[in-house]
Amino acid sequence: MLIAADDRGLAYGDGIFETLRLTAATAPFQSAHRQRMAAAAKRLNIPFDASRFDAEVAELLKPGEPAVGKIILTRGSGGRGYAPPAHPHPSWIVQRFPLSLWQEQQRADGIQLGVCDTRASDAPHLAGMKHLNRLDQVLARQQVMRAGWDEGLMLDATGAVLELTSMNIFARFGDNLLTPSLHRAGVSGIARDWVCQQGRLRGLSVQEGKLSLLRLREADEVFACNSVAGILPVRKLAVWQWQVGEVSRQLQQSFDALFE
Amino acid sequence: MLIAADDRGLAYGDGIFETLRLTAATAPFQSAHRQRMAAAAKRLNIPFDASRFDAEVAELLKPGEPAVGKIILTRGSGGRGYAPPAHPHPSWIVQRFPLSLWQEQQRADGIQLGVCDTRASDAPHLAGMKHLNRLDQVLARQQVMRAGWDEGLMLDATGAVLELTSMNIFARFGDNLLTPSLHRAGVSGIARDWVCQQGRLRGLSVQEGKLSLLRLREADEVFACNSVAGILPVRKLAVWQWQVGEVSRQLQQSFDALFE
Repeated sequence: MLIAADDRGLAYGDGIFETLRLTAATAPFQSAHRQRMAAAAKRLNIPFDASRFDAEVAELLKPGEPAVGKIILTRGSGGRGYAPPAHPHPSWIVQRFPLSLWQEQQRADGIQLGVCDTRASDAPHLAGMKHLNRLDQVLARQQVMRAGWDEGLMLDATGAVLELTSMNIFARFGDNLLTPSLHRAGVSGIARDWVCQQGRLRGLSVQEGKLSLLRLREADEVFACNSVAGILPVRKLAVWQWQVGEVSRQLQQSFDALFE
Repeated sequence: MLIAADDRGLAYGDGIFETLRLTAATAPFQSAHRQRMAAAAKRLNIPFDASRFDAEVAELLKPGEPAVGKIILTRGSGGRGYAPPAHPHPSWIVQRFPLSLWQEQQRADGIQLGVCDTRASDAPHLAGMKHLNRLDQVLARQQVMRAGWDEGLMLDATGAVLELTSMNIFARFGDNLLTPSLHRAGVSGIARDWVCQQGRLRGLSVQEGKLSLLRLREADEVFACNSVAGILPVRKLAVWQWQVGEVSRQLQQSFDALFE
């Protein structure tokens, strides 16, 4: 698949994307992905066609096998300069990848993290969106690879816990589930929303707020999530360790069941 | 010109660019652009081929007419996920645009600015580079267009003066020329470097530092610059006004002479 070299998605990262895990027949979080993309498109002032989104997902499902679908929506072609065209013709760029999951050992015993030197850009105007400006994550992930960690913890500009390079993070303290707020940075994950909902259904108090490294250390359990990998316990961050907890295990099973 | 849909420049804004003003026969700031691109490529760990850069500029010059050349360098194609390939094959994407300059009246009497609501992302790891993560500027420029300003002033996360959406800014106080430091945000412009150099040659004291809005108000003259437009006096920011100063005029003439 080819795109025009003057596409603003390339020139300026002027667009957004969704990555959907597909079963053989359905995309279980399709409507959540559609809603998130619609909301981000509105914030960026990119026209969004919900029925086109659903048509692209239907096309992705045709082979009838579990996979990962990626849908990129950009503002389309434009001339030189940051000013968007008055009447943009958005580009839909759709790709299908084989489903690759974490190893059974990591899913059962948890993953080990390091703290990335790259902090997430402080940018309230972009916070929460899965936009195409992802150099923070590219830089952070290079360190993860060099260091040989499973994943990397990214801090925000104040040094508080924010997210992993491609997952959101939760910490449980007794009956309280805490995840960092995403007002100034971070991606508002589909699986993160699902965990918040599930946590409340299971009688936990779920809060978004500030999570310092020192507070994280005291958590009863820590886990990470995204809509492809599901739920992964975190067993180690640098020299700190946690036990795999019951909430992680239960949520992991419930999530996985959605894709059976 | 077409590029692969899995190019990381599109997927993540994983690349950098240079915009060069060309005369009929030369690219006067060619070596400065090459050096800036080389330095940014090194920071992002993207292989950079200096002779390829020069070859692309030579190609851009072939038509023998003044123009604007744009050279995008991305990390090239990659699979799904932020982790860069171990051995990337960078993409060179080169475009040629007609030269379009500001109107004579704006060049002579100055431009009028507003203050953009979008503040520049606070991101020391990306500061200074002309990378492809430009949603800050895209959002800010939309406000410039809606408001009918000539250009927009972008503040940094602390509310200090940083730059315009596509130009750097200078304020003169007596014999002192001050431009905002770019340690946490902003693009380190080729024309900005040239102005710093020229200012010193002309006996001014040139400093990079913090520039608050209130301090800007007291400037004897204010001007903006980039390597295509050259030097533009600033005559107005919201309700504040400045006279067009001698330094702006002299630097504008010197800059323009480079392209005659």
